[in-house]
Amino acid sequence: MIVILKSDVTEEQIQHILKKTENLGLKANISRGVEKTVIGFIGPEDVLRVTPLEIYPGVEQVIPVLAQYKLVSREFKKDNSIVTVGEGIQIGGNQLVVMAGPCSIEDLEKTRSIAGAIKKAGATILRGGAFKPRTSPYEFQGLGEEGLKILSDVGKEFGLATITEVMDPRDIDLVCRYADILQLGARNMQNHSLLKEIGKVKKPVMLKRGISATINEWLMSAEYILANGNYDVILCERGIRTFETATRNTLDINAVALVKKLSHLPIIVDPSHGTGRWELVASGAKAGVAAGCDGLMIEVHENPEEAISDGQQSLLPEKFQSMMDDVKKIAQAVSRTI
Amino acid sequence: MIVILKSDVTEEQIQHILKKTENLGLKANISRGVEKTVIGFIGPEDVLRVTPLEIYPGVEQVIPVLAQYKLVSREFKKDNSIVTVGEGIQIGGNQLVVMAGPCSIEDLEKTRSIAGAIKKAGATILRGGAFKPRTSPYEFQGLGEEGLKILSDVGKEFGLATITEVMDPRDIDLVCRYADILQLGARNMQNHSLLKEIGKVKKPVMLKRGISATINEWLMSAEYILANGNYDVILCERGIRTFETATRNTLDINAVALVKKLSHLPIIVDPSHGTGRWELVASGAKAGVAAGCDGLMIEVHENPEEAISDGQQSLLPEKFQSMMDDVKKIAQAVSRTI
Amino acid sequence: MIVILKSDVTEEQIQHILKKTENLGLKANISRGVEKTVIGFIGPEDVLRVTPLEIYPGVEQVIPVLAQYKLVSREFKKDNSIVTVGEGIQIGGNQLVVMAGPCSIEDLEKTRSIAGAIKKAGATILRGGAFKPRTSPYEFQGLGEEGLKILSDVGKEFGLATITEVMDPRDIDLVCRYADILQLGARNMQNHSLLKEIGKVKKPVMLKRGISATINEWLMSAEYILANGNYDVILCERGIRTFETATRNTLDINAVALVKKLSHLPIIVDPSHGTGRWELVASGAKAGVAAGCDGLMIEVHENPEEAISDGQQSLLPEKFQSMMDDVKKIAQAVSRTI
Amino acid sequence: MIVILKSDVTEEQIQHILKKTENLGLKANISRGVEKTVIGFIGPEDVLRVTPLEIYPGVEQVIPVLAQYKLVSREFKKDNSIVTVGEGIQIGGNQLVVMAGPCSIEDLEKTRSIAGAIKKAGATILRGGAFKPRTSPYEFQGLGEEGLKILSDVGKEFGLATITEVMDPRDIDLVCRYADILQLGARNMQNHSLLKEIGKVKKPVMLKRGISATINEWLMSAEYILANGNYDVILCERGIRTFETATRNTLDINAVALVKKLSHLPIIVDPSHGTGRWELVASGAKAGVAAGCDGLMIEVHENPEEAISDGQQSLLPEKFQSMMDDVKKIAQAVSRTI
Repeated sequence: MIVILKSDVTEEQIQHILKKTENLGLKANISRGVEKTVIGFIGPEDVLRVTPLEIYPGVEQVIPVLAQYKLVSREFKKDNSIVTVGEGIQIGGNQLVVMAGPCSIEDLEKTRSIAGAIKKAGATILRGGAFKPRTSPYEFQGLGEEGLKILSDVGKEFGLATITEVMDPRDIDLVCRYADILQLGARNMQNHSLLKEIGKVKKPVMLKRGISATINEWLMSAEYILANGNYDVILCERGIRTFETATRNTLDINAVALVKKLSHLPIIVDPSHGTGRWELVASGAKAGVAAGCDGLMIEVHENPEEAISDGQQSLLPEKFQSMMDDVKKIAQAVSRTI
Repeated sequence: MIVILKSDVTEEQIQHILKKTENLGLKANISRGVEKTVIGFIGPEDVLRVTPLEIYPGVEQVIPVLAQYKLVSREFKKDNSIVTVGEGIQIGGNQLVVMAGPCSIEDLEKTRSIAGAIKKAGATILRGGAFKPRTSPYEFQGLGEEGLKILSDVGKEFGLATITEVMDPRDIDLVCRYADILQLGARNMQNHSLLKEIGKVKKPVMLKRGISATINEWLMSAEYILANGNYDVILCERGIRTFETATRNTLDINAVALVKKLSHLPIIVDPSHGTGRWELVASGAKAGVAAGCDGLMIEVHENPEEAISDGQQSLLPEKFQSMMDDVKKIAQAVSRTI
Repeated sequence: MIVILKSDVTEEQIQHILKKTENLGLKANISRGVEKTVIGFIGPEDVLRVTPLEIYPGVEQVIPVLAQYKLVSREFKKDNSIVTVGEGIQIGGNQLVVMAGPCSIEDLEKTRSIAGAIKKAGATILRGGAFKPRTSPYEFQGLGEEGLKILSDVGKEFGLATITEVMDPRDIDLVCRYADILQLGARNMQNHSLLKEIGKVKKPVMLKRGISATINEWLMSAEYILANGNYDVILCERGIRTFETATRNTLDINAVALVKKLSHLPIIVDPSHGTGRWELVASGAKAGVAAGCDGLMIEVHENPEEAISDGQQSLLPEKFQSMMDDVKKIAQAVSRTI
Repeated sequence: MIVILKSDVTEEQIQHILKKTENLGLKANISRGVEKTVIGFIGPEDVLRVTPLEIYPGVEQVIPVLAQYKLVSREFKKDNSIVTVGEGIQIGGNQLVVMAGPCSIEDLEKTRSIAGAIKKAGATILRGGAFKPRTSPYEFQGLGEEGLKILSDVGKEFGLATITEVMDPRDIDLVCRYADILQLGARNMQNHSLLKEIGKVKKPVMLKRGISATINEWLMSAEYILANGNYDVILCERGIRTFETATRNTLDINAVALVKKLSHLPIIVDPSHGTGRWELVASGAKAGVAAGCDGLMIEVHENPEEAISDGQQSLLPEKFQSMMDDVKKIAQAVSRTI
């Protein structure tokens, strides 16, 4: 922790700070510059973090030196983490994983049809929402347990692992009975009750980045899950909110390589939400793989015109197939397989 | 709903759209311009909203005409809603309400001391967190029920109503037993499970704006609460996330007057979070009242140097008193009382 | 300047940094913490700023200690600067100044009519654009010198000082012949050629904040003007670009009090651009004065329906009069006059 | 142009609007819905755009139907534009172009050394600034004409075309004498005086996206150049400003595919500015090519530790070589050459 003092700080104020911090068991190192004086504190940063040094008289700015996350950091674990899903799917290794399926589970037949198509194109994980976080209370909120059952049955039938969103701590047990990966959605990235409960689960979790979460906050939310005991966390970049409205979100492609530097956790790119427009999905998927992500999550619908949600960003099965063909070439160019 | 067609749309594509929408029971009105053709649809917009017209061949853009919120809108209710709290505090009328207190409830003595100070300065509602949404899992997470009890006891002792945050649907009953107003925090503004449950409660709710929520999304979240039966909703502007980092958040002062135009619900300004720096709090409070808000929420701490959270944005009791003196003059200038 | 080193920095890398910086004449102060080592450099920070220490092996982060602006800072000059315009108008003192008028100068008669109305309501400076920065090349670009002449003539007739925008270094002499204050618009806040030339002029300059400029960058642009010799700089907060689209811009009300802390220069609020909607202008004006600004800039038009530009954010003269009545009460509440 | 009327619009207000617009030569098409009435106007949209219909009594919202840009649009020209530079370099065709070099031209020897290295790695255009837009007036502002001369001489010696920034309309002739492509920088994207003058030049121009410019505004700035007669415009995505501070800018990868849909102009990606951190540059470059851009602009410096500007985002020659090797594989995967 570094504390920059005001130009007009008094010696008395400096001594006040030093006395307080000494009581906290910290060692101080003072640099008296021509215009500013700076104190560097050595000792457990956690102690300092809960002390609002900003408010001490004479203090201008406080700068933390250490990242607040520990378990998710690359410094904690040098090698890439590999999350194993179901029987034999590995996320975070050399092989890329593709999760695909409808935004919402609508009925058995449509889900079967989409599952067949994505399987054929090379996806190994079926996605589909049973609990939907919708902006409006008047919109379709998902089929609930019936949707989970369809997802699970179709997954088994086609030999696909499954992923679905959980929104309420009271639904975790239920969702765990049906799905192979729990998804924690963007709107709930800082739902701390949910993060803590999911940390106690023995299932892989995919944590989507909040729509306006910094990379640091995202990693801190992952830290909640690991700190509660669940190390099988997959991150998912799904676009952030910016001033640009020509696309629904701005896919933060920089986040892929940066997260790889900062953390050992696998990272997936979701270009369906990251762009919000189906014509841009393939280009976002290719960019994600070129940038170094460990997999993709793609919305696919047999008949987007009739999709209950997110039709405008869903790919038809034949477009998905064509995207997969292109993505395989990019994967090869970066020495990965699909 | 208005649909703008592509320049090269074919007659066949237009007929396809018209047939589909006719089946949905909608009347279409076509304007064929020199460069673009536009279709206006008349009929229940809810039907159209779940149909992804964006994806129909030939469609360039879809523009909704009606706001999605109904119960919260000024069109639904012309007069200002007044929310009654405890015995006799009214929020949304001519008199401004001031909620103040520590970020977190820390112990009984500190809470009593702060309560005495804010009461003396003219506040009528005591705030204080017992469940804290913290970025880091390693930070103080609140005293839980013990904190609620302290809040409630001190409120009664000093004749102050109380407000505190609820983060988990499973805690709602507990919080209802102790507090007069439930607060739904910024990070949970789109926690739909929580919104629905809070909609079933018979207590006033204060809904904070999400850190990157548009005014439309914020009103939609309020709509969830009203649609579930609870009409006693108070909105709270607490700053949004922008590119500017010199302040913790950017207090969106425009939102105050705009929300008053769009909705009948009362709106409170929280300049403690809206600025994130105690030296700016008084100026934000005055601006809020000048812009037409119905009250203020202010973090006050007897000894911010020792505060467990948010010390850097908390006011000392004497600064709070001085702020209140200034705010009273502004209130008078806009023909309001405190 | 503080340099935070990587956890795995080697002693050799540290010595490499120390040797380089010693050659630059800097004294280093090393704090070796448990997890991280930090070096604080003492000496002229300007020397360090042009050395990209970020790229040195072993360096994780570089944090400047001093603000880069000097002449505009409150530390350089403790007292508020007062800018004198024409004969006797003072900006930055106890009396607030109001600048009003049409977005663009359209013709003599309209300008006279608006000038009469704003004078009557209490404004002392007439605004109006002769060179207009328009998003589209096909929109009205301003009357040029003819507009300047109208502005100047009408100003003299009504005893109003005048302000108008200059966009091109080649137009500075021309604009100086007609106007009392040069305006440097938001789009040109980082047009460094223009900033330097305007720094050589002997006229007051109003520098609008760029649409996505941080407060630091804004003050740096002001520093360009002062560093070139012109100390008569007025700042103008006119709203920033954020994710919120319900208003044209987000008026950054926090900036008013913060700029007052950081700098001695006067600051004006422009709620016409800051909101972009005429129904919100009065509320933004009141908030600005309550927050502590030194004046207002307001777009007024006799017939906004026919205005060539910015009609949607212009006030009718009677609305302007009514706003002024309200603003006077707020001014009194903060012990200022108009 | 579509006009949505307020729920309580009166017949008189509707007639007022219709009369005004009829006078402008427009045909109106009214849809009277259950809750809202909507008017679609047919006729020249330019006429309407300068009429602030938003302010007419009874109007709630005005929605333009046509994009404001014409000459830059894909509708105006279906085929990709190819810009020819110097003797034989084509930008916008199947072959990707790579522009590389130092941020600023510092001296002849360094420039020669970097030129040799980038040529060897496959770049064909040498970049380097002689006029630098710096945030601080106390930082290096560029060598001016001396820098242009070095750039031109070294370009000729190594058979590289050259690109450099022009910041002032008075410098255009000078820069044209030395460089093959004029660069219009992000800070000047809406410097309309400069845009107009550059539109009159007979040299290719690269227009960087402003740091907070929407894609629409960027295309409108390009429209200024084409409308003034210069059709040889290259667009450059260089990152936008968002709330994320872990990277200097957020590379908007979505913009690549979207611009390709909206416009026929070539688009270049600049991952040096787009990320602001040298460790992320290669990943941004690969993502850009995978997404479909027509070329790259990369900052390269022989000794970033000594670079006068942008050292932290410059690649060493060997890292540039390695990036080029990777980029070639991605280019091949998307059926392009370098």
